[in-house]
Amino acid sequence: MKKVIFITFLVWMGCKEAPSADPTFGIVIHGGAGTILRKNMTAEKEAEYRSVLAEAIQVGHAILKAGGSSKEAVEKTIHVMEDSPLFNAGRGAVLTADASIELDASFMDGATLDAGAISGVKTIKHPISAAIKVMEDSPHVMLSGAGADRFAVEQGLETVDPEYFITERRVNALKRVQEAQKPQKISWSPTEKEFLQQQRYGTVGCVALDLSGNLAAGTSTGGMTNKNWNRIGDAPIIGAGTYANNATCAISATGWGEYFIRSVVAHDISALMEYKGMPIQEAAYEVIHNKVAKLGGDGGVVGIDKKGNVMMEMNTPGMYRAHMDSEGKLTVKIYKEE
Amino acid sequence: MKKVIFITFLVWMGCKEAPSADPTFGIVIHGGAGTILRKNMTAEKEAEYRSVLAEAIQVGHAILKAGGSSKEAVEKTIHVMEDSPLFNAGRGAVLTADASIELDASFMDGATLDAGAISGVKTIKHPISAAIKVMEDSPHVMLSGAGADRFAVEQGLETVDPEYFITERRVNALKRVQEAQKPQKISWSPTEKEFLQQQRYGTVGCVALDLSGNLAAGTSTGGMTNKNWNRIGDAPIIGAGTYANNATCAISATGWGEYFIRSVVAHDISALMEYKGMPIQEAAYEVIHNKVAKLGGDGGVVGIDKKGNVMMEMNTPGMYRAHMDSEGKLTVKIYKEE
Repeated sequence: MKKVIFITFLVWMGCKEAPSADPTFGIVIHGGAGTILRKNMTAEKEAEYRSVLAEAIQVGHAILKAGGSSKEAVEKTIHVMEDSPLFNAGRGAVLTADASIELDASFMDGATLDAGAISGVKTIKHPISAAIKVMEDSPHVMLSGAGADRFAVEQGLETVDPEYFITERRVNALKRVQEAQKPQKISWSPTEKEFLQQQRYGTVGCVALDLSGNLAAGTSTGGMTNKNWNRIGDAPIIGAGTYANNATCAISATGWGEYFIRSVVAHDISALMEYKGMPIQEAAYEVIHNKVAKLGGDGGVVGIDKKGNVMMEMNTPGMYRAHMDSEGKLTVKIYKEE
Repeated sequence: MKKVIFITFLVWMGCKEAPSADPTFGIVIHGGAGTILRKNMTAEKEAEYRSVLAEAIQVGHAILKAGGSSKEAVEKTIHVMEDSPLFNAGRGAVLTADASIELDASFMDGATLDAGAISGVKTIKHPISAAIKVMEDSPHVMLSGAGADRFAVEQGLETVDPEYFITERRVNALKRVQEAQKPQKISWSPTEKEFLQQQRYGTVGCVALDLSGNLAAGTSTGGMTNKNWNRIGDAPIIGAGTYANNATCAISATGWGEYFIRSVVAHDISALMEYKGMPIQEAAYEVIHNKVAKLGGDGGVVGIDKKGNVMMEMNTPGMYRAHMDSEGKLTVKIYKEE
C-alpha cells in the first residue's frame, strides 16, 4: 500500500504546474489560409508575402518588448496587414457581389473579456481600430453596416474614400468568380475550382501575450469574394473568429467563415483548454482537423496561451503565418509543409 | 484489495449511462428575462403573459407529439411570440434610437450543426423564418441589414410595412428612455433606474427535442430600446444567444446581450456538458450565476438536453418561461421564486 501511495504522490508531483518562470511575451499572426501552393507562386510574390508578414509582426513585437500592451501590439500589427494590398483586409479586400467593399473586424481583451466588433463598414481605413473603439467607447459589443461607419466617424477614426480599398487584382477576381458562378455553368476545370475555393479566404489576424500576462486577439477581413445580402462571416463574431481569455488563450481564425461560426471555433479551443486541460496545440488540432473538417469546412487558426506557447494550425495546403518569441526569434511560413 | 476492486466496480456501474429509455420529446420557451416584479404587474397583465406562453408552447408541443421535427416546433412556437405585442420580437419589438425597428434572429439544428441568422431586418414578419431560410437556402450563416431583408423577400417570406411592428407601448418606452438618458441628466429615481434596466431585455426563444432525438434552438428579438449604430446583440450570434448540438443540448438565451456575447453563453453551456460531463442544469447555473454575473451581466437561458432534461435558469428577478414534457405536463412561470 505504501508503494501505491508513493506512486500516487509522484504522479501528483508530475501533474503540478511548474513554478511560473520569468514574465514572457509573444506574438503570432496569420494572413489567410487556403489552397496556397508552391506551383502557383512566383519567387517574387512569395518574398513579398514573407516580407510583409515579417514587417507586421516586428511592429507588434517591438511594442511588447518595450512593455506595451497586447492590445496595442495586436492593433498596430493588424494595421500593417490592413494597409498591404496583399491581404484580404483593409486595402486589397475582396469585393462583394455588387463590386463594393464591406469590411468586418473584431477584438477581444483576455484580461477583462471586453470585446468589440464591426461588420460591413465601407469607409474606415483600419477596421480593427473601429472594433477596439466599439469596445472602449460604446455600450455595445457589435455594430454593423452604416451605423458602424457612423460610430467610427463620430469617434474620429480615419476614413477613406471606398475606392481606396479597391485593387485591380480583386476586381479581376470578382469578374472571374461571377463568370464561373453563372447559373448556366455546370462544370468547372480543376484550375477554376481551385480559384473559386481560394476566394473564400484571406482574413488577417493577430494574437499576443504581453509582459503583464495579458492576452489579446484581433481579426480583420473583407470577407468572401462575391458575397451577397450583407453576409457576415466568422471574423467579427466573438467566439467564432476571435476569442481571448487570460485563463486560457488568445485565438484568431481564418477560414471558410460559415463553418467556423457553426463550430464556434475560437471559443471551442479555449473551452477544450479550460475544461479538459488540453494544451493549446492539441485543442486547436482537435477543433480544426476533427470538428471543422468533419462538417466539411477548412481554414486555420493561430493562438498563444498564457505561458507563451504558440500554435498555427490549418487543414488547408497553406496559411500565411508568422510568430516571434520574447527572444526575438522569427518564424515565417506559407505552406503547410515547411 | 478485493474490497477496493469491488467498490471501484460499483462506482463504475454508477457512472455508466442508464440504458436509453423510450424516445421522448420536450419543449421549453422564454419571453425575456429582467426586473419582472409582482409589484409592477396587474393580475390581467400576468394572466395575458401566461396565456400567450401556454398558447405558444402548445403549438410546438402538438408538432412534436405528432412526430414533427424540433425545427418546425421551434419555428412555429416562436411565430406565436413574434405575433404577440407582449414580447420584444416581431410585432411589439422595441424601438431603436431613430424610432425604427431592427429585428434579429437565429436558429441552429443540433443534428447537422447547420445554422442561420439575420440581423437588423425591418420588413420580415417572422424573423425566425428568415434565419431558417438563410440556413437552408443560402450558402451563408448570417445576413444583415438591407441585404437580409432582400434575401428574405427573394425567398418569398411574408413582409409587412414597418409600422406593423410598432406599438404605442414601445413608442412611449423609447421616449422615456431618451428623456432619462439625456446627457444633462445625472441622477435617476429608483423607478427610473428599474425602467431603464428593463429596456435591455425581452428576447423570445425556444428549444426542443423531437421524437427522432434531434435538438433545435431558435431566438428572435428586437434588441435593446434606443439602440444605436445598427447594434447587434447576442440573439443572432450562434454560440452566444443560440446553440444546438445533438451531442449535448439546445440553448436559447435572453439577457443583456453584450455580456452574453462576451461570455459565449450558449456554447459555453454546451462545452461544460461535453467536456466536463456536467448536467445541463449545473452547466447553465455555472455560466449564468458565475461567469456572466461575474462580468456584471444579467439575463437567463432555457435549454433541453438529448434526454429531455430541461432547465430555465436566470440571475434576474424574473423570466417569462414555460416548458412542456412528452406527457403534456405544462409549467408556466414568470417570477424567479414560484
